[in-house]
Amino acid sequence: MKIAVYPGTFDPITLGHVDVIRRAKSITDTLHVSVARNSAKKTMFSLEERLEMLRTVVGDTKGIIVDSFEGLTVNYCLSLNACAIVRGLRAISDFEFEFQMALTNRKLDERIETIFLMPSEQYTYLSSAMIKEIARLDGDISPFVPKECVERIKKRCRIGG
Amino acid sequence: MKIAVYPGTFDPITLGHVDVIRRAKSITDTLHVSVARNSAKKTMFSLEERLEMLRTVVGDTKGIIVDSFEGLTVNYCLSLNACAIVRGLRAISDFEFEFQMALTNRKLDERIETIFLMPSEQYTYLSSAMIKEIARLDGDISPFVPKECVERIKKRCRIGG
Amino acid sequence: MKIAVYPGTFDPITLGHVDVIRRAKSITDTLHVSVARNSAKKTMFSLEERLEMLRTVVGDTKGIIVDSFEGLTVNYCLSLNACAIVRGLRAISDFEFEFQMALTNRKLDERIETIFLMPSEQYTYLSSAMIKEIARLDGDISPFVPKECVERIKKRCRIGG
Amino acid sequence: MKIAVYPGTFDPITLGHVDVIRRAKSITDTLHVSVARNSAKKTMFSLEERLEMLRTVVGDTKGIIVDSFEGLTVNYCLSLNACAIVRGLRAISDFEFEFQMALTNRKLDERIETIFLMPSEQYTYLSSAMIKEIARLDGDISPFVPKECVERIKKRCRIGG
Amino acid sequence: MKIAVYPGTFDPITLGHVDVIRRAKSITDTLHVSVARNSAKKTMFSLEERLEMLRTVVGDTKGIIVDSFEGLTVNYCLSLNACAIVRGLRAISDFEFEFQMALTNRKLDERIETIFLMPSEQYTYLSSAMIKEIARLDGDISPFVPKECVERIKKRCRIGG
Amino acid sequence: MKIAVYPGTFDPITLGHVDVIRRAKSITDTLHVSVARNSAKKTMFSLEERLEMLRTVVGDTKGIIVDSFEGLTVNYCLSLNACAIVRGLRAISDFEFEFQMALTNRKLDERIETIFLMPSEQYTYLSSAMIKEIARLDGDISPFVPKECVERIKKRCRIGG
Repeated sequence: MKIAVYPGTFDPITLGHVDVIRRAKSITDTLHVSVARNSAKKTMFSLEERLEMLRTVVGDTKGIIVDSFEGLTVNYCLSLNACAIVRGLRAISDFEFEFQMALTNRKLDERIETIFLMPSEQYTYLSSAMIKEIARLDGDISPFVPKECVERIKKRCRIGG
Repeated sequence: MKIAVYPGTFDPITLGHVDVIRRAKSITDTLHVSVARNSAKKTMFSLEERLEMLRTVVGDTKGIIVDSFEGLTVNYCLSLNACAIVRGLRAISDFEFEFQMALTNRKLDERIETIFLMPSEQYTYLSSAMIKEIARLDGDISPFVPKECVERIKKRCRIGG
Repeated sequence: MKIAVYPGTFDPITLGHVDVIRRAKSITDTLHVSVARNSAKKTMFSLEERLEMLRTVVGDTKGIIVDSFEGLTVNYCLSLNACAIVRGLRAISDFEFEFQMALTNRKLDERIETIFLMPSEQYTYLSSAMIKEIARLDGDISPFVPKECVERIKKRCRIGG
Repeated sequence: MKIAVYPGTFDPITLGHVDVIRRAKSITDTLHVSVARNSAKKTMFSLEERLEMLRTVVGDTKGIIVDSFEGLTVNYCLSLNACAIVRGLRAISDFEFEFQMALTNRKLDERIETIFLMPSEQYTYLSSAMIKEIARLDGDISPFVPKECVERIKKRCRIGG
Repeated sequence: MKIAVYPGTFDPITLGHVDVIRRAKSITDTLHVSVARNSAKKTMFSLEERLEMLRTVVGDTKGIIVDSFEGLTVNYCLSLNACAIVRGLRAISDFEFEFQMALTNRKLDERIETIFLMPSEQYTYLSSAMIKEIARLDGDISPFVPKECVERIKKRCRIGG
Repeated sequence: MKIAVYPGTFDPITLGHVDVIRRAKSITDTLHVSVARNSAKKTMFSLEERLEMLRTVVGDTKGIIVDSFEGLTVNYCLSLNACAIVRGLRAISDFEFEFQMALTNRKLDERIETIFLMPSEQYTYLSSAMIKEIARLDGDISPFVPKECVERIKKRCRIGG
């Protein structure tokens, strides 16, 4: 049984993430959607909120497990017996950063492969940062995030802005 | 009559900006050079200073209007009856960021087109950030910024450094 | 009155071309869609066929003129009193080739500006070459080319394959 | 059971291909290494020779099937009940071409996902074309191709050169 | 006698830096490995610590001088009678930033050439930032930094984390 | 004494080549400008003509030797006791191809380093292919090639067109 991990910050989840999750599920038996807990980045949403949004949107899908982890991604994969890390590739800038991370992860443990998937072309321009900026400027974010999360994200960005 | 908007931070204006403004003017009837007021970025020059520098350098050109705006660029375009946003493309890294912005703007309002222009090759390496760094190290910035602004920028960067 | 030229080989026209033409029209008063006659490239469709397909698809739009030209694009622009060449930018590889052409054209005559437009993201992957390959392998090309041209292109690719 | 297809021309097989095959195997249950039969490209080695080299190098691995196909890759995948196409990504230029192909394949049949894998960094520069050029100039190709194929490729390139 | 300068922050030194230094030495008579003193960036290691690590690793090599400088790199080169600045190019993102810097330096003084070298492909993914992140997550950094520096870097990153 | 080789096809020489030659000379003691004799590419100018143009333009400069070679570039470098191959980098597409070649050359003989130089930004768009196309369309090539070669190239391209 093939297990894979889709790690990320998901601050907040976008329709691009949902698209990658759906595609990753189609090629693995079990997919962990895993929030990285120990990132040095300051986030807009707490770990608990990000997990809750992920669970609301994809948590009920068979074969998908929403969770979180601490430390190196490769170590988390080994602890789950996963064979691969899944990443979405939207553009050249993603490509370089993601390759650097994938090569570093391979150096850290070469049993874990990194799999790159391409989101639908309608999501190639989406990023969590862009969505927060639009919400801050009071623009309509509903084409960009899951409908279950629109209100929550709008509210937070306006308050936090 | 075709109206376009060239939005930016202009912190400070560079000869690359001036070059794009001149080119954008040649293909539109009216060009708004518009400072984004509500950006979250911390700037070195105040809004008033940036508007003043722009007015000094390009404000007297027929068909060019220097102004500022708040909120989403597409909404500002709609309020002016503009058909297009103008952006300069210098390099691959610009290309990716600018495309992401343009696609997002199109999603927000598809009546507004984004037009990309290529500055003169002698300005492909210019950025406001690089100029501030050179001024901070006491290098000569006169090949990079309009002559009317050299002294003001040098003075500020040394004080702020 | 602002006039622009959208030059190309159009062998054959794709939905990506149609998208760029529609966008280019929205920012100019008159748009020439101009087939380059003297290209050294061997084409699958004759000049007459390519002009006919273009006329069928966009020839009836007000402000659009379908024609052809010989020699340098900048000279053709000058002869029409056009201020700009329009080009679609789909990807990084386009970017580099198009910038090289635009800079060369600028060197040849600096009165003519090159305007880059971004096709809809659903057409970023489209190329005439890819379409000919799919038709050759008997795949369905109807999502990629104007419906008026599907039969003609399928027929030619199969015969020519 | 998850089945994937790694399609290619393999003219000739390189150590980079072998590396991608090994990685692809680790994340799928069955991997078809499939020579595209109907490509318009002129090849240096016949279909039979290319299949033979592939079989010699990877044919004995459990879960790997060496075969060939005609027509669209997505149709071949559907006929095998495969869920994914595997591709190696070495560099930016690969990235663009591969994304164009992947998006086209998705348009042709959206049930088939494309999975990108990253070869070992020591193979990022390898291409079949470069190897043929080195062999033609009588350089040592043994660091680039499987040892079982060195003599065969050297001989052919010198004759064909 | 040809003199070159390899400027950097070296916070901390990586095996990629060591590789570029060794290559740069092979093509010049004297190579200055020079820590930029006045950078605005906050560093993890003090100037004295970075100089000490560099001296430990490459200071004993004939023709290599470890030092530091203040102000513009081109001015430092002129003061040493150096003809060139050496830079390592790992990836596209380096390429763009490095070209921007090289063109700016050329504008500031055109007597100083910038020479780009390519590190070994096993170091193309290495960056000081990535190493600090791995150390912070308690991963093994010994494949990435000179063995003389492993303990010092691990200790600092854990404390600073 | 440091010796370097600048290999190429030079079909024909451009002002971009001349610029790279001048820069390469400033950082080496002896520079060989070397026409690759055994390339499989069909050229517009004969080997003798290309050598003659190079000699006319740069042959009289002290420390520059115009010559030609057969076989692998690294072998030619070894035979001259050269320590480096010089290449000009104009754009991203150059970058990838040149890196692939440099990594392959390093694999073939790691004593030979590849040095990348950046031509003046006014030549970043220049290529021999573009110049031949302009000459074929009867455009003015004098801004692109050494003045001593303008007539010869114009004549040939028109005849060959």
